[in-house]
Amino acid sequence: MNNPILVEVLRSSLVESRHRGAVAVADGDGATALAIGDVTTPIFPRSAVKALQALPLIETGAADTFGLGDEELALACASHSGEPGHVAGVTRMLAKAGLDATALRCGAHWPMAQPALVALARSGEPSALHNNCSGKHAGFLCVACAKGIDHADYWRPQHPVQREVRAVLENLTGATLSDDRCAIDGCSVPTWAIPLQNLAHAFAKFGTGHGLAPERARAAARLRMACTQKPWHVAGTGRFCTEIMQLFGARVFVKTGAEGVYCGALPELGLGIALKCDDGAGRAAQAVMAAIIAQFLPLNDAERTGLMRFEHQTLRNWNGMEVGALRVTEALTYCAFGEARTGWDL
Amino acid sequence: MNNPILVEVLRSSLVESRHRGAVAVADGDGATALAIGDVTTPIFPRSAVKALQALPLIETGAADTFGLGDEELALACASHSGEPGHVAGVTRMLAKAGLDATALRCGAHWPMAQPALVALARSGEPSALHNNCSGKHAGFLCVACAKGIDHADYWRPQHPVQREVRAVLENLTGATLSDDRCAIDGCSVPTWAIPLQNLAHAFAKFGTGHGLAPERARAAARLRMACTQKPWHVAGTGRFCTEIMQLFGARVFVKTGAEGVYCGALPELGLGIALKCDDGAGRAAQAVMAAIIAQFLPLNDAERTGLMRFEHQTLRNWNGMEVGALRVTEALTYCAFGEARTGWDL
Repeated sequence: MNNPILVEVLRSSLVESRHRGAVAVADGDGATALAIGDVTTPIFPRSAVKALQALPLIETGAADTFGLGDEELALACASHSGEPGHVAGVTRMLAKAGLDATALRCGAHWPMAQPALVALARSGEPSALHNNCSGKHAGFLCVACAKGIDHADYWRPQHPVQREVRAVLENLTGATLSDDRCAIDGCSVPTWAIPLQNLAHAFAKFGTGHGLAPERARAAARLRMACTQKPWHVAGTGRFCTEIMQLFGARVFVKTGAEGVYCGALPELGLGIALKCDDGAGRAAQAVMAAIIAQFLPLNDAERTGLMRFEHQTLRNWNGMEVGALRVTEALTYCAFGEARTGWDL
Repeated sequence: MNNPILVEVLRSSLVESRHRGAVAVADGDGATALAIGDVTTPIFPRSAVKALQALPLIETGAADTFGLGDEELALACASHSGEPGHVAGVTRMLAKAGLDATALRCGAHWPMAQPALVALARSGEPSALHNNCSGKHAGFLCVACAKGIDHADYWRPQHPVQREVRAVLENLTGATLSDDRCAIDGCSVPTWAIPLQNLAHAFAKFGTGHGLAPERARAAARLRMACTQKPWHVAGTGRFCTEIMQLFGARVFVKTGAEGVYCGALPELGLGIALKCDDGAGRAAQAVMAAIIAQFLPLNDAERTGLMRFEHQTLRNWNGMEVGALRVTEALTYCAFGEARTGWDL
């Protein structure tokens, strides 16, 4: 199946590049509110499901045992930019569990956001704390420590923490996470391929608690509120997830994943969203997510303007001259609420 | 027309992302040696045609007037990484024309290669000299100065230097560069959209001199020898263009352009190459270029191994674990020499 072109990159008035992809929007019963392209083939959600991977941190009581606050819970769900505040927060999480950075098994990398990279280059070298996944890993370590389990191999698929994460993902998505759908993520924990329609259903449940056991529904609400109240901790300065949740507060939960993935929830509408660009392009994926939010959610002028910055982005060159634009296509802009479309090939 | 999937990105054994694109290979008469996908719709070649844009630097006598050497000529054709040797070389070019960095109108940006970015962050701030196009701009300035033309507006489409560049591009590509195909490049000079088949034809001429006036053929040979003898100056440490030309010397000319473009020449076969990935992905474009070189050129073991590193790249995570691979698809690997294919949709 050919997914449709969702985003075009224009230079002057000509299309220079194009991005294909698929989008699923579903409610808490799993009913389709929107389906564009192939929403049934499993895709790797990568970091877009970190908030689901963090549910055991609440459900096991680890967050309360170690007195984690909203910033720390947001970091457990984050792909952060490795800015000083992120590093300090993860260090604090680890200290509350009696650990330090040596316990992290995510590996080190330079911040992906250029300003954060430049700032770190001027002050030192990246450590595992700067890894965008260090908060998620600190959360896994908190779970192991709270349960009194040896934490050395907390990242391996057979470790009790990862087995619990897998069970939570199966419960929310309704997908069977068989071994042939398992791969290794950038930070070394397992990542399972899951269809977009199942991911959208999972995030509808995450956004509303609909269909979840009461304890799980409360854990989801707590993580969601932590992320939407501390959105800087979920990503970082100037990042899409941070800016969108700063703009909308609790009305929108949104989380990026590597290779062009976004998952999100619109709690007031009872909807979950999952999308992936075929080519893994984050610039296109964020434009698509902005367009989907704009179509479904009632907006005031400031919100509409805030989304339009991503949905139809002006491209400037090194001298600040306007040279083109990134815009979503008719495959998205003509979609109406409640309308299900599949197999659209533009 | 749907361009075929040329590159797949695997995580474990599942395809995580995919890149579509088109490829043209032509000889000096413009005859098609290979055509995959849409090779007739104009695309922006961006920096992939810098060597053609540098022809007036030789032809006007400016290179001789200012005594430019191979390193400086390679920089005029370069998208360099802003490493100290690149900055020093461009500074030297400008000084030979009696100018300094204040004459450059390309704008400043941080190096795109991470090691170069980190190194610069530790020593200072980026200037126009660090712009990957600064050598091309220095070349334009040399032309203006050698001809005694006011150089202030050397970057504008109506300036004599850019009008000369446009005429050279029309001569080599055989395409009519009408105003509706003109856009502004990242460094502010004009960029014209040109079909891949015309670009491939142009680079066959560039690689052999076939069909060019003698003076132009000599200028092309001089630039090509400068680039293949000084490949570090064309890109930088660890970059694809540099590594390929280090591996093959004068047997392969290759040059990247923004948004997933490569142009190249295989002089011993009389062939030119032009390709673009639809989504603008450089990671895929370099894999395709490696595969095309491997199909056409007779290779020894070291050359085959060197190309395979890009054609079938092992992907590792932050801990160095093998997590997947980037590989070219059957749309490329089953192409045989001399076989023309269009409209292949996998």
